[in-house]
Amino acid sequence: MTIEEYIIATAEKVDQPLKDGLAVTDAALETLYDSMRYSALSPGKRIRPFLVLEFCRMFGGNDAAAMDFACAIEYIHSSSLVHDDMPCMDNDDYRRGRLTNHKVYGEDIALLCGDALMTRGYEMASLNDKVPPEAALAATRVLLREVGAFGMMGGQCIDLMAERERPTFDQLLKMHDKKTGALMRASALMGCIAAGKMPGSDECKNAAEYATKIGLAFQILDDILDVTGDVATLGKMTHTDAAEGKTTFLSFMDIDGARKYASDLTDEAVGAIAGYKNNEILTELARFLLCRTK
Amino acid sequence: MTIEEYIIATAEKVDQPLKDGLAVTDAALETLYDSMRYSALSPGKRIRPFLVLEFCRMFGGNDAAAMDFACAIEYIHSSSLVHDDMPCMDNDDYRRGRLTNHKVYGEDIALLCGDALMTRGYEMASLNDKVPPEAALAATRVLLREVGAFGMMGGQCIDLMAERERPTFDQLLKMHDKKTGALMRASALMGCIAAGKMPGSDECKNAAEYATKIGLAFQILDDILDVTGDVATLGKMTHTDAAEGKTTFLSFMDIDGARKYASDLTDEAVGAIAGYKNNEILTELARFLLCRTK
Repeated sequence: MTIEEYIIATAEKVDQPLKDGLAVTDAALETLYDSMRYSALSPGKRIRPFLVLEFCRMFGGNDAAAMDFACAIEYIHSSSLVHDDMPCMDNDDYRRGRLTNHKVYGEDIALLCGDALMTRGYEMASLNDKVPPEAALAATRVLLREVGAFGMMGGQCIDLMAERERPTFDQLLKMHDKKTGALMRASALMGCIAAGKMPGSDECKNAAEYATKIGLAFQILDDILDVTGDVATLGKMTHTDAAEGKTTFLSFMDIDGARKYASDLTDEAVGAIAGYKNNEILTELARFLLCRTK
Repeated sequence: MTIEEYIIATAEKVDQPLKDGLAVTDAALETLYDSMRYSALSPGKRIRPFLVLEFCRMFGGNDAAAMDFACAIEYIHSSSLVHDDMPCMDNDDYRRGRLTNHKVYGEDIALLCGDALMTRGYEMASLNDKVPPEAALAATRVLLREVGAFGMMGGQCIDLMAERERPTFDQLLKMHDKKTGALMRASALMGCIAAGKMPGSDECKNAAEYATKIGLAFQILDDILDVTGDVATLGKMTHTDAAEGKTTFLSFMDIDGARKYASDLTDEAVGAIAGYKNNEILTELARFLLCRTK
């Protein structure tokens, strides 16, 4: 099986639990749950759940222990997209070829939907009873820290500020470390915790380093593809960063330099988990994300 | 000390921890934290934190054990107000005489602010280390359930639906049970948990009944005051429900009937905790809320 096939197979494994976690029998709440399902179950590579499951596997845990955490991170990722797409943020009508949540359900429901998906994500993590209570609590804490003002949401705020004042290179790094890296880190760490490795352990530190670095490399690739990518392959417009006057990695280096930077980060990510048995899949994942064309 | 003085004294006790929980030294996140503090620290009676602290006290716990839970519920209450006030929801420019969050910080920051305050609330609950880990986990789970799609957010969704189709009396009850009752219940339950009474115990069941019933009585009073209240005392416009064609308790009964209903609910709430020592304050609170004129 190629890594791409393996990613698809894992995504399929996650889809049923994702669906089950949003099942509801209360007719009064049907619209809210419909909107939650619309966004959380939309097709995707499920890279973050993949990280949860694969870190758990690498450290000897089983999928059942990690599955609630995998769903949790996907709900939260979706919720952030629902809010990001809203008119007061990026004002996007389409995401991956489908109408965005607020275009289908209205802005009021979309706002609630994002809130409720986020809350459901935290709840799924806290309710994981396939792991000891201390592990569920530890994972919930990690998740809340990496998503909140200190993590992803802080990164989104820095991004909004960057539209007003051009960020320095260090600020750009910090923004992406929070905006993209934080959820990657939460995924990797929750996977470790599902396998019984608790925060503070060497395993968790190395997992965090791996996730932080592939997260940053992922973002650099995004910036490169915006310039070099093919619209049909990407499934979205290119050259939007320049058109919007956005500061990207290419504001500080040329394309070759950016490729080299992403490649070095990938090497470091791979190096962080080199000492562990069964690291092949995560090693391949890092290389795969570096070579992506969409 | 009258109950009103006692409420003020308790609110003052909560204000410093509320402030400390939103302290930040990172300049890049200053705007986000400013917006969070603007809403979470705005003056208020802090009735929900009061419930947390007072249920903990009644069951023999101390304030220190309950304080993180008290802050958690207040952050979440504030976050719901920030999102409720946004143009796509109630579109309010003022709240208690102060500009609403999005009027000061813009809609984009207000959206993030609500997300981050909510997340910080859950995080404060999960990080409470003055109680055993099982208690922190149990409280976090209760909080997430009562806030999410099943609880407060579900109630907000039913409210939005009610604008499109006139609700029945049962739907109105359900809406308020979730929209207002859920956070009251979470408060009472987290107070019990801080005192070592775990979910499923008789103490938790009775606390939930008390909170559910004072929550509903509170809402009925709101509907009555909208008709009978004094604009200067209330600090907000009256007769807005009728003007907006909203379904309220007064759509189903006259003012005397509504007063009787709220009074009966208050008696039942008081009855639910009648068997416990040191129930005086919570008994007085229920009576006080019934007699409020603002």
